[in-house]
Amino acid sequence: MALRFALMIDPLAADQTAPDLATTFTAVDPAAPALTVGELSTQRGDGIFESIGVVGGHPQEVEAHLERLVHSARLCDLPEPNVAQWRAAVAIAASECGEGEGVVKLILSRGVEHGPTPTAWATAATAADFSLARTEGIRVVTLDRGYAIDAPARAPWLLLGAKTLSYAVNMAALREAHRRDADDAVFLSSDGFVLEAPTASLILQRGDTFITPAPNGAILHGTTQLSLFEHLAARGFETAYETIPVDELRRADAAWLVSSVRLAAPIRQLDGADLTVDAEFTASLNDYLLSPRD
Amino acid sequence: MALRFALMIDPLAADQTAPDLATTFTAVDPAAPALTVGELSTQRGDGIFESIGVVGGHPQEVEAHLERLVHSARLCDLPEPNVAQWRAAVAIAASECGEGEGVVKLILSRGVEHGPTPTAWATAATAADFSLARTEGIRVVTLDRGYAIDAPARAPWLLLGAKTLSYAVNMAALREAHRRDADDAVFLSSDGFVLEAPTASLILQRGDTFITPAPNGAILHGTTQLSLFEHLAARGFETAYETIPVDELRRADAAWLVSSVRLAAPIRQLDGADLTVDAEFTASLNDYLLSPRD
Repeated sequence: MALRFALMIDPLAADQTAPDLATTFTAVDPAAPALTVGELSTQRGDGIFESIGVVGGHPQEVEAHLERLVHSARLCDLPEPNVAQWRAAVAIAASECGEGEGVVKLILSRGVEHGPTPTAWATAATAADFSLARTEGIRVVTLDRGYAIDAPARAPWLLLGAKTLSYAVNMAALREAHRRDADDAVFLSSDGFVLEAPTASLILQRGDTFITPAPNGAILHGTTQLSLFEHLAARGFETAYETIPVDELRRADAAWLVSSVRLAAPIRQLDGADLTVDAEFTASLNDYLLSPRD
Repeated sequence: MALRFALMIDPLAADQTAPDLATTFTAVDPAAPALTVGELSTQRGDGIFESIGVVGGHPQEVEAHLERLVHSARLCDLPEPNVAQWRAAVAIAASECGEGEGVVKLILSRGVEHGPTPTAWATAATAADFSLARTEGIRVVTLDRGYAIDAPARAPWLLLGAKTLSYAVNMAALREAHRRDADDAVFLSSDGFVLEAPTASLILQRGDTFITPAPNGAILHGTTQLSLFEHLAARGFETAYETIPVDELRRADAAWLVSSVRLAAPIRQLDGADLTVDAEFTASLNDYLLSPRD
């Protein structure tokens, strides 16, 4: 996922009614220095982000991503994002992703300590090739996230529902999964309920019903999961949000990790036990996810 | 704490035996762009740091900080820091802190995605004026950290003993404290034990004994706490590491938050209840902390 393009965004110059938001953007070389060492994103992981899938130049589910950016900003006491400005930035960045699949990343940082605040930018990159994960499936291990399922209700300062830049634990969980000869992880609450993956949502299948962990603040609202649930409902399947004990995941007829760029990756092994992968059905999900979606 | 100076460090060029480590440093303008948008420190809070107090040009407790940097790197699967190189960087940065009190910050980032890795830099800044916090004391609220006291033993991927750049929760806890009309917070485990403050360690006093939470992996090893314990022992006091239920903190004869730059800040109010501040004794602690320490 080498960066092809970067756009610095001036959030202070933005005005919801400005006729030409493009004047608040500055294209920069993604390989050249663009941020100062005083950036709080870099010093404190203090900011929020979104990763938007792009297919053939079309950014997917932009409004859902922008809504989540606004939600994250609110949870983190960051200035309210100017949605019209971010939408314009996504359009420009998406056009720089090239052919095939790409990813546009939006970052809103708390800014520079004692400096202008916030800082914001968008990047465009070619996506990695995830075709193997989509067709062959992935091996997943469950890892304790340390929090009880009711922690977020008690302690909003844990920012569990915000997509912050503080992803060191998510990255460490992926390294732990690799150490265990797996491709990815599923976080469990300390009391044994299924949460989410470090960079994806979980959907499991029980008969003709598709189930995802209830968003109670402990997990991110998954934009790809939301989109897939609409699609599955339109195909006549039941969809449900539930509090899912890990044993229920182990007994599922099938399960997927779904995210904006890798899309639907069927879980073929969970903690060493095989899970059934329905290749044809999974392909139909990814066909949908690769079609232009707004 | 405006930055006065920044030094980019080339960790790949470093060699423990290099005769001139200074050739691996490049001074940069701290107000000018120095980092690319692809930096994983900024995208993922994926890296580690240290903040070293500087008094009259002398960096305090450098070896303890470098040891913790190495410890954090190990927990985060980062390349082993070249301690000789970091020590040389600290000396240069400390000399740029000016008169009075300053702070040298060391950052080791996982680097640029698909680029050179890791990246590293040091900054020098004048410290904020903390004399009021040191003399008048601070109001503190307790906040749930969400984890049980035994979480780190079960789940090392939570990185609880590492000083990572993923500090969004620490910053959110400080904002929550301010919302509650307090100056700072003390984190509690979900099962009610005292951990640490978002950017400081806790020491409490019971008679002639000074107690700090036992380092079981759930908290950082506090360099200032370690130094103060040595000092207190030399003065004939008892020191102890204990698992501290929050009620014990409430019953303490006195308590302090201690850290590298603010130094010893006596807690004058805990969750709205007054605590005794011994101004003279606290001044003696800060006199010690302001003296040159190695």
